[in-house]
Amino acid sequence: MSGQQNLTEQRKDNDMQDVIQYLTDQQPRALDQLCEFLRIPSVSADSAFRGDVQRCAEFVRQAMTAAGLTAEIIPTKGHPIVYGERIHDASLPTILVYGHYDVQPPDPLDLWTTPPFDPQIRDGRLYARGATDDKGQVFTHLKALEAWFVVRGELPGNIKFLIEGEEEVGSDHLEEFLKGHRERLAADVAVISDTSQYGDGIPAITYGLRGIVAAEVRLRGPSKDLHSGIFGGSIANPANALTKMIGRLIDDDGRVTIPGFYDDVAELTVAERQQFARLPFSESGFLREVGSGALFGETGWTTLERRWARPTCDVNGMISGYTGEGPKTIIPSKAMAKITCRLVPDMQPAKVLDALEACLRESCPPGLKFEFHRSHGCQAFAFDPTSQWITAASNAVAQAFGQPPVFIREGGSIPVVLSFKQILGIDTLLLGWGRNTDNLHSPDEHFHVADFHRGTLGSACLWEKLAAMKASGRS
Amino acid sequence: MSGQQNLTEQRKDNDMQDVIQYLTDQQPRALDQLCEFLRIPSVSADSAFRGDVQRCAEFVRQAMTAAGLTAEIIPTKGHPIVYGERIHDASLPTILVYGHYDVQPPDPLDLWTTPPFDPQIRDGRLYARGATDDKGQVFTHLKALEAWFVVRGELPGNIKFLIEGEEEVGSDHLEEFLKGHRERLAADVAVISDTSQYGDGIPAITYGLRGIVAAEVRLRGPSKDLHSGIFGGSIANPANALTKMIGRLIDDDGRVTIPGFYDDVAELTVAERQQFARLPFSESGFLREVGSGALFGETGWTTLERRWARPTCDVNGMISGYTGEGPKTIIPSKAMAKITCRLVPDMQPAKVLDALEACLRESCPPGLKFEFHRSHGCQAFAFDPTSQWITAASNAVAQAFGQPPVFIREGGSIPVVLSFKQILGIDTLLLGWGRNTDNLHSPDEHFHVADFHRGTLGSACLWEKLAAMKASGRS
Repeated sequence: MSGQQNLTEQRKDNDMQDVIQYLTDQQPRALDQLCEFLRIPSVSADSAFRGDVQRCAEFVRQAMTAAGLTAEIIPTKGHPIVYGERIHDASLPTILVYGHYDVQPPDPLDLWTTPPFDPQIRDGRLYARGATDDKGQVFTHLKALEAWFVVRGELPGNIKFLIEGEEEVGSDHLEEFLKGHRERLAADVAVISDTSQYGDGIPAITYGLRGIVAAEVRLRGPSKDLHSGIFGGSIANPANALTKMIGRLIDDDGRVTIPGFYDDVAELTVAERQQFARLPFSESGFLREVGSGALFGETGWTTLERRWARPTCDVNGMISGYTGEGPKTIIPSKAMAKITCRLVPDMQPAKVLDALEACLRESCPPGLKFEFHRSHGCQAFAFDPTSQWITAASNAVAQAFGQPPVFIREGGSIPVVLSFKQILGIDTLLLGWGRNTDNLHSPDEHFHVADFHRGTLGSACLWEKLAAMKASGRS
Repeated sequence: MSGQQNLTEQRKDNDMQDVIQYLTDQQPRALDQLCEFLRIPSVSADSAFRGDVQRCAEFVRQAMTAAGLTAEIIPTKGHPIVYGERIHDASLPTILVYGHYDVQPPDPLDLWTTPPFDPQIRDGRLYARGATDDKGQVFTHLKALEAWFVVRGELPGNIKFLIEGEEEVGSDHLEEFLKGHRERLAADVAVISDTSQYGDGIPAITYGLRGIVAAEVRLRGPSKDLHSGIFGGSIANPANALTKMIGRLIDDDGRVTIPGFYDDVAELTVAERQQFARLPFSESGFLREVGSGALFGETGWTTLERRWARPTCDVNGMISGYTGEGPKTIIPSKAMAKITCRLVPDMQPAKVLDALEACLRESCPPGLKFEFHRSHGCQAFAFDPTSQWITAASNAVAQAFGQPPVFIREGGSIPVVLSFKQILGIDTLLLGWGRNTDNLHSPDEHFHVADFHRGTLGSACLWEKLAAMKASGRS
């Protein structure tokens, strides 16, 4: 960055004081509104919450309207999409913001300190399901827009907001929506805040994500549970068989044994490994954080490398037979396991699922009915950190957080990033305001109140920096 | 058997007509009373049913009284034992009858055609939890005694009845009771009906049983469920680890791989293998019976041999993580499995559990907390089929069923048989009136009405045959 540019930045930074002041003054009100958002149990995986999901969409629509957008709820075959936009100057770039208003199921409920849909602030943290993933982060962008709209009377650049309700269940209807609304959604760049800062006070821009494939394997043995004494030894036990089939998927070195699993893996460059190695990382601190006694994973890679850039094969849940109090001497009639594999560039989801299915099927003993149900999947994502958009975003983050972000990858999957690239032809800026210790997908999910506020500032600055870029005239 | 003995038998058989006629006339009433017995949900494994178990004990006490015994309910630290006796002639042998009034948990409830504790007769079968295991079979002995008492005014021989309420949860307090009441329980032989006929119209005397050990293995990983994207690859997943640890316990040939597992196994004799081979057994019929697509088990042995005289290692149930509708991308914080091994002579329960624990512990990855909880266990049992008691019982069965019984083993475990041998010094006659297709421990458990009736006749004849034996004068 040249000295001239630095001066320009400096002037612009000062120019943001009015918007920043407004956001700071309005913080308590913004927090109240976020709590209202979080009180709606928009669990997309469970059909019992269908009405709440619908109600949540309406909340988002109203918040968009308050931020100066023209907004509507668009039905899909699943949960609705909320879309809002303001296009006011064709010479300015157009920014497409994506987020999701649906949340993970809250169970196990008994491990929450306070109820998941009764938001409460303790020690500077706002606790609720969806606090950071992704309602809290979505809300920073809406509040930042609102600040521009109120303080300046107009939004910087042209803005499009796409907030969906099926992210936690695979975004099944999003791709169809994108394909059906290519022109309406046309933009220069996308912005998503569904990732994390690198650490306490270390903001980050995420330039890579892992992909995912998910499947459920079901084994059916005898037509009913059998007495393990009378029948034990004569037919395959579905529970034993399932452990055998799944147990061999990872070897003692933490390496996945599915044939061909690593064939397409794009290895990290020496430069990336060096860059990751420079990031502060405390193994003991990490273990305290997750409450685990030791690290375990593929040998030959650091913990960050294994989490960000190496593929995995995890059982997410399994059940068979009797799991209540006391013994029950049966051969269960069936067994089930849910499995996900995290993918890295350039693994192909369908190929991985084919290999997983073949590997499991091959080791299924005779007499069992083998079923393999595929769920959502997406490729991994990585883009060039020297892009002009990344630089602009980096400047905005530096302004809001007081220091420049580091460039990292993340282990999670955001399939929409790939869809934006493939269908809309745009790159995505991944700006995470939260932290990976915020208990995403776990009991006691939370969002630091300070992060929420910094997020609104970062977002407000981001609109200005991005609006200063050269528009492609696509919107 | 000599010609003289045959004539003697014939005369005695004719002598039983009065008792047999009574039992036949009274069958509808006996069935009604059995239904009353079955309506009491005496589930010993679940403390929610404690009151029902107590109520069931009282039912048994009253039935004993009706059969001419002096009966009482004796509390234990768990569920009570019901004990009744009638000692009227020191020169006659004393017979100790054992059974249990507790039942297995009825779940999964949705697989029952009619509710488990609402007994109903369909197609000549009485459906209810406990119908055959063991309430129905216990009741045949009580009804047979009652018939003797009513028709003849006195019982044949001296009779002791011990009916416990903790058989399905390991008979935790029975051994202490036996040790504390050695003199009171002194007898010449024990009788238990908790096994099965060999097949349709093929009565059997069971001369061997498998033993059992039970354990629960629990793994604890991170302190809470973690996001599988953010954390996947960095720490051991308890669900994956459990499948790996358990999955390797049985090899592709169905052989248990626990080191030393087969060291103490008493192999079947050539004569036994030949005898088993002569028994009618249809593999296709067996597979239809259990609703399974193929046989699977330790290679080198027939299906009957594997079920009766080879040890096993079965998962009875397991659970980890999310098992509800839709995907949930987590690393579960914990995983649990219940395991039982069926034992054959001369395997030692403690040695098997030690080996199982060591084998599992050894393959537990770092960072997981490993817990191994031992439950009940007992050795296998086998006794000499040329004993005088066996011959007497065989004659009684032949009289009631119209044909002599075959001599078989069974795969289940009846720990009390070993306790009777070790503590009271007596052998046990295992006379099963039910069938192994009666869905013991499964939904739709039932007892053929005809088997119930034949059982009462067999029992009535048994008392006479046993009473004709030489008493040891121990009672």
